[in-house]
Amino acid sequence: MQPMPLLVVGSVAIDNVETPQARRDDLLGGSATHFSYAASFFTDVQLVGVVGTDWPAEHTKLLSDRGIDTSGLKVADGKTFRWTGRYESNMNDRETLDVQLNVFGEFNPVLSEKYRRTEYVFLANGVPALQMRVLDQVPGCRLAVADTMDLWIQTTHDDLMKLLHRLDGLVINDMEAKMLADTENLVLAGHRVRKLGPKFVIIKKGEHGAMFFSEHETYVMPAYPTEKVVDPTGAGDSFAGGMMGYLAEHDNFEPHSLKTAMAYGILVASFDVEGFGLERMQQISREDIEQRMTLYKKMLRF
Amino acid sequence: MQPMPLLVVGSVAIDNVETPQARRDDLLGGSATHFSYAASFFTDVQLVGVVGTDWPAEHTKLLSDRGIDTSGLKVADGKTFRWTGRYESNMNDRETLDVQLNVFGEFNPVLSEKYRRTEYVFLANGVPALQMRVLDQVPGCRLAVADTMDLWIQTTHDDLMKLLHRLDGLVINDMEAKMLADTENLVLAGHRVRKLGPKFVIIKKGEHGAMFFSEHETYVMPAYPTEKVVDPTGAGDSFAGGMMGYLAEHDNFEPHSLKTAMAYGILVASFDVEGFGLERMQQISREDIEQRMTLYKKMLRF
Repeated sequence: MQPMPLLVVGSVAIDNVETPQARRDDLLGGSATHFSYAASFFTDVQLVGVVGTDWPAEHTKLLSDRGIDTSGLKVADGKTFRWTGRYESNMNDRETLDVQLNVFGEFNPVLSEKYRRTEYVFLANGVPALQMRVLDQVPGCRLAVADTMDLWIQTTHDDLMKLLHRLDGLVINDMEAKMLADTENLVLAGHRVRKLGPKFVIIKKGEHGAMFFSEHETYVMPAYPTEKVVDPTGAGDSFAGGMMGYLAEHDNFEPHSLKTAMAYGILVASFDVEGFGLERMQQISREDIEQRMTLYKKMLRF
Repeated sequence: MQPMPLLVVGSVAIDNVETPQARRDDLLGGSATHFSYAASFFTDVQLVGVVGTDWPAEHTKLLSDRGIDTSGLKVADGKTFRWTGRYESNMNDRETLDVQLNVFGEFNPVLSEKYRRTEYVFLANGVPALQMRVLDQVPGCRLAVADTMDLWIQTTHDDLMKLLHRLDGLVINDMEAKMLADTENLVLAGHRVRKLGPKFVIIKKGEHGAMFFSEHETYVMPAYPTEKVVDPTGAGDSFAGGMMGYLAEHDNFEPHSLKTAMAYGILVASFDVEGFGLERMQQISREDIEQRMTLYKKMLRF
């Protein structure tokens, strides 16, 4: 098999995270960052984002040392996107204490010639209009998957509807799916969102795993049970990174591959939450993921 | 294989249920009722409970027509236990609008000689002291599993602790597990509760499935994805009934059987919630359960 490169466009940020146990400042964060690192276990990743002049060079080095192509990470005048959040004791609900979009507020990605030829593309959470402008630049894209969030569902609904028709897959969390589909039943929500355009919809349920919906398939996969939840920030992005990484690695998105890819996404995310920022992912290798996969498959077999 | 009889002791009630879609009064309800019906797909069930003189004979007939042994269902002077509840739009959170314990408040089960020889026993939700008095009467019991609830965790904590040491298995919901273990992490909660005595603990997560904890095993199984949630009342009891029914049918509670049994519990519960009271279970046969099992196994295979 010939792994395919994977393009991700999204936020690159500096995070401050507070949990009931600890507080950590100046963490390397952002949706595209978590995605890239997670996907880098599987294939070559091309990261497109923007940071400010305050961005520490060591952060870029950390990513490029993983083999992530950071040539699409632009430095703009101003400060890097900053997010500060606090998790409740359930480690699921969180409060955003502060958001400073800074240079990310003016983010308008222009892809290089090389990047425009990418066939596997992930549009991390962002304004739908911007996500569509990225799609305009990848005419040969074979698998376009996007994330979105409650803010865009509420404030840019029309653009989001246009985007959905152009997607192969949409990855959203349970709250967003309920909002978008106007129902509390997640199975119904998944089918309704799929009918809005995407060929498949994945609903992320955090500690409860993820659900998959396509025209002919509906399934649920549980999260990997871990008692060590240190920082859930980026769990959804590392899920998407592991999933898309596996698909690009195998250059295949047939139903069976999608299911295996979802399992890999769940497992990479289960590592991601075991440390602050990218810390836990930095400690592991593909072999650790494969070992957990063996346990996960055993868990689901009876 | 020689199916073993299964004894259940618990509430038998008349329910009024209100959902966002409908309201239904005078439903055949109660924990032992849902359990019995669910277990009757697998083995012979002996139901021990109490009702009042207002109890409709057709309810008993409905159960005995299923082959459930209702000789342990006593009629006492007074009224039957009545419960009225209302479900929120998420069909998960519910409010108890009215409870009248009536004759169930004085419930003090005395088992017949035949019942005292039962080897598979389920203590449906009830006062821990009462659950222990039942255990005293089944000296040859090989598999004792109980349910409990937040009220007993809070008000009869010492008795509950004594009970836990006498159990093979405990089945509780996620909120109760968190309360009993004093942690928001369900994986940690499961292990902590197990260390309080039971050989295994099962945490019911409603629409998110169930988790299993023993000394050597931890696993999660997702719920069967259904868009038709009509009335969740009794889902946990039908889960336990399906699970215990399978174990008694096979007279085996080795790790592999426990896992398969948990899957059967999940599937019977997925039918139970598709109608009010016992209505949906009344429409199905063992074959329907087996068909859903085939789909469920396929869903978990990749």
